[in-house]
Amino acid sequence: SLLELMSEFHYADIAEIIDELNLEEGTYLIKLLDTERTSDVLTELDEDKREQILERLSAREIAEEIGELDTDDAADIIAELPEERVREIISQIDDRQHARDIVELLRYDEDTAGGLMAKELVKVRESWNVLTCVKEMRRQAENVTRVHSIYVVDDEDKLKGRLSLKDLLTTSTKTQISEVYIPKVDYVRVEDKAEEVARVMSKYDLEAVPVIDEIGRLVGRITIDDVVDVIKEEAEKDYQLAAGITQEVEADDSVWQLTKARLPWLVLGLLGGLGAVFIMEGFEEVMSNPNYRSLFFYTPLIAAMAGNVGVQSSAIIVQGLANDAVKGSLLQRLIKEVSLSLINGGALALLVIAFGFLINQPLEVSATIALSMLAVIVVAALIGTFVPIILDKRGIDPAIATGPFITTSNDIFGIFLFFYIAKVILGF
Amino acid sequence: SLLELMSEFHYADIAEIIDELNLEEGTYLIKLLDTERTSDVLTELDEDKREQILERLSAREIAEEIGELDTDDAADIIAELPEERVREIISQIDDRQHARDIVELLRYDEDTAGGLMAKELVKVRESWNVLTCVKEMRRQAENVTRVHSIYVVDDEDKLKGRLSLKDLLTTSTKTQISEVYIPKVDYVRVEDKAEEVARVMSKYDLEAVPVIDEIGRLVGRITIDDVVDVIKEEAEKDYQLAAGITQEVEADDSVWQLTKARLPWLVLGLLGGLGAVFIMEGFEEVMSNPNYRSLFFYTPLIAAMAGNVGVQSSAIIVQGLANDAVKGSLLQRLIKEVSLSLINGGALALLVIAFGFLINQPLEVSATIALSMLAVIVVAALIGTFVPIILDKRGIDPAIATGPFITTSNDIFGIFLFFYIAKVILGF
Ligand SMILES: [Mg+2]
Ligand SMILES: [Mg+2]
Ligand SMILES: [Mg+2]
Ligand SMILES: [Mg+2]
Ligand SMILES: [Mg+2]
Ligand SMILES: [Mg+2]
Ligand SMILES: [Mg+2]
Ligand SMILES: [Mg+2]
Ligand SMILES: [Mg+2]
Ligand SMILES: [Mg+2]
Ligand SMILES: [Mg+2]
Ligand SMILES: [Mg+2]
Ligand SMILES: [Mg+2]
Repeated sequence: SLLELMSEFHYADIAEIIDELNLEEGTYLIKLLDTERTSDVLTELDEDKREQILERLSAREIAEEIGELDTDDAADIIAELPEERVREIISQIDDRQHARDIVELLRYDEDTAGGLMAKELVKVRESWNVLTCVKEMRRQAENVTRVHSIYVVDDEDKLKGRLSLKDLLTTSTKTQISEVYIPKVDYVRVEDKAEEVARVMSKYDLEAVPVIDEIGRLVGRITIDDVVDVIKEEAEKDYQLAAGITQEVEADDSVWQLTKARLPWLVLGLLGGLGAVFIMEGFEEVMSNPNYRSLFFYTPLIAAMAGNVGVQSSAIIVQGLANDAVKGSLLQRLIKEVSLSLINGGALALLVIAFGFLINQPLEVSATIALSMLAVIVVAALIGTFVPIILDKRGIDPAIATGPFITTSNDIFGIFLFFYIAKVILGF
Repeated sequence: SLLELMSEFHYADIAEIIDELNLEEGTYLIKLLDTERTSDVLTELDEDKREQILERLSAREIAEEIGELDTDDAADIIAELPEERVREIISQIDDRQHARDIVELLRYDEDTAGGLMAKELVKVRESWNVLTCVKEMRRQAENVTRVHSIYVVDDEDKLKGRLSLKDLLTTSTKTQISEVYIPKVDYVRVEDKAEEVARVMSKYDLEAVPVIDEIGRLVGRITIDDVVDVIKEEAEKDYQLAAGITQEVEADDSVWQLTKARLPWLVLGLLGGLGAVFIMEGFEEVMSNPNYRSLFFYTPLIAAMAGNVGVQSSAIIVQGLANDAVKGSLLQRLIKEVSLSLINGGALALLVIAFGFLINQPLEVSATIALSMLAVIVVAALIGTFVPIILDKRGIDPAIATGPFITTSNDIFGIFLFFYIAKVILGF
């Protein structure tokens, strides 16, 4: 009945259903399903839901699920549990090699190649002959969902190349692998950043890539489905950072989680706004001058322009840095940003002057506003461009320097610059 | 020498080099390389560069390159050329089936499954026996870089299922395919949006997915490498939209291209700022009141808060809509957004009152500012949440409703609300 219905579903769909159910129902469903599917369902669950459900399973039950998963998924699930529990679960996994592989994977940082790879792969030794090789491949392939590539290693397990299945099948069974393998193979290093792995795999259209350790030994393999997840998560994280959200949250997360993710950036924005209050207080006497006090009407416009230009510049640079596509010298970039903002700012300045005519504003005031706005735009573009470049050079993720960070600092700089230039020109 | 050096490189790397060279050098290099590599290099080139290089090649030369490419890449390249040229090139392709396949693919919109799929795939008929099937598969597989799956169709070419290679090899050669195939197979429809294809393939961890037409016939196949490109481009586009950039541009594009992408949003922001000027003019007399004129110092803060809160809310909803993860009724969402913004806004309001003490501002003024800011934050959150939802319901991409769109409308709403509430409370 329910079980039959569920057996029609893909595990990713069952996971979605369980994410929507309450804890009792979810746990019930997990216990109801045959173990081969539950393990896959577990990997697809929402992290919080999984944690809660795992708390309700015994170490033995979890060990059984873990035993059915590929090592990468197994390690990811186990890594979320308390250390004490991990030891207990590991000790109950029947397949000891599987347990050792998982323990090895637990060592690696989750956003590195080591954190993405699985131990499941097919590898043969260059010293073997074709006959041994085929026999070994058959045995190994049983643990591997998709073979993709056959990797060739030397006697010290160092990655030497790969084997074409066609070459293998058309060669006499006594030939040594060293005579037929292809010595060229794309690989990544175990300490490479996940983003770098994603860049390599998408650039070279790879469906799987072998991972080598510091001395060149083949230690694992990364498949494209896991890298697709990395690409999507990375994009969502950057998008949220640009919008002033610090943690990966979703529309359906709790109010408390959303507050934790959003409030810090709002406080930053508030401090920036209060900074602007200070600056404007210094120009308070201008309010007594009926000719010039309209300057204060333009502060939101100046802040908006400074913010928008800064966000545009920083977004382009942050993407360029992520794609390794920012070329040329800093001076060239400086000249380009300045000319770009002079063109954009010039067009906007003309609009401001036209608007001044419409509302019968004295030309000197309109011209002053237009000119200071132009200056603010140039400075905002420079800040938006060079702050991410500087952060990147210092090894800090430039993605934090978009959104609220740039709009807030540009608000303060912009308003100060606006009043200062107006003061110099109009002489108040 | 140069040629030897190049032969060591992957075509994606050669394309990157050519993108950096000037047009003469690039064209020279393309003509120098053997045709089998050039076609792949062409697909990886920057669009503008490719267009320029193709202008310098004859229809015959292009036809030769096209002939070596998979149909999806061939169609993508040809689709960029003028119609007249396309006809000329198509007529010069030697393999007529290949030419017909490409012409068929040209029909589909580029951001649909049809625009992503290739005609290269391996399919067998359910009426065949295993022997015929294996013979046919061998023949078809010659044109397919990676087989991935063997699809089963009926005599009308309708997709019925797929075949496991293992089952095929362990069955007697006389068995009919209809007796051994697996009737369950994931597929997409030719008119499905590219984003939907990406969602399905990443959810079910597919490396390839068959595409069926309106009446269920198997018409093509989409591979994960092309979907990875879709995911990345889609993410970059949304990121840029949120930053107020309308076209896909890169840090190294020309000043003119960057201006076209950026200026429209800046003009929108300018108009919003000028709208705020109008609103504040209506409150100009407050400037003569020494107790209340400090309200004008807070307009950038109000605009910043309205903008930041709106961008945060819209970013979370836009992502939720893209991931199909926005559940529950509109009323629930309304309650959640209001409580979230009351919590965040309340914390920020307290900070504003504390700041008021610091600068010896009359408490009634601080309290008024804090309260109006709280109201502005609630309204901004509602606008940020519901504008994307409404757009999405009307079939408009909600991603345009982030960044400048939200900050600009929230600037105006926020400043009006701020002064209006202050007027009511303080009674000026
Ligand atoms: Mg299980
Ligand atoms: Mg991992
Ligand atoms: Mg690619
Ligand atoms: Mg995996
Ligand atoms: Mg997976
Ligand atoms: Mg990043
Ligand atoms: Mg070629
Ligand atoms: Mg296409
Ligand atoms: Mg997946
Ligand atoms: Mg393709
Ligand atoms: Mg490709
Ligand atoms: Mg989108
Ligand atoms: Mg702003």
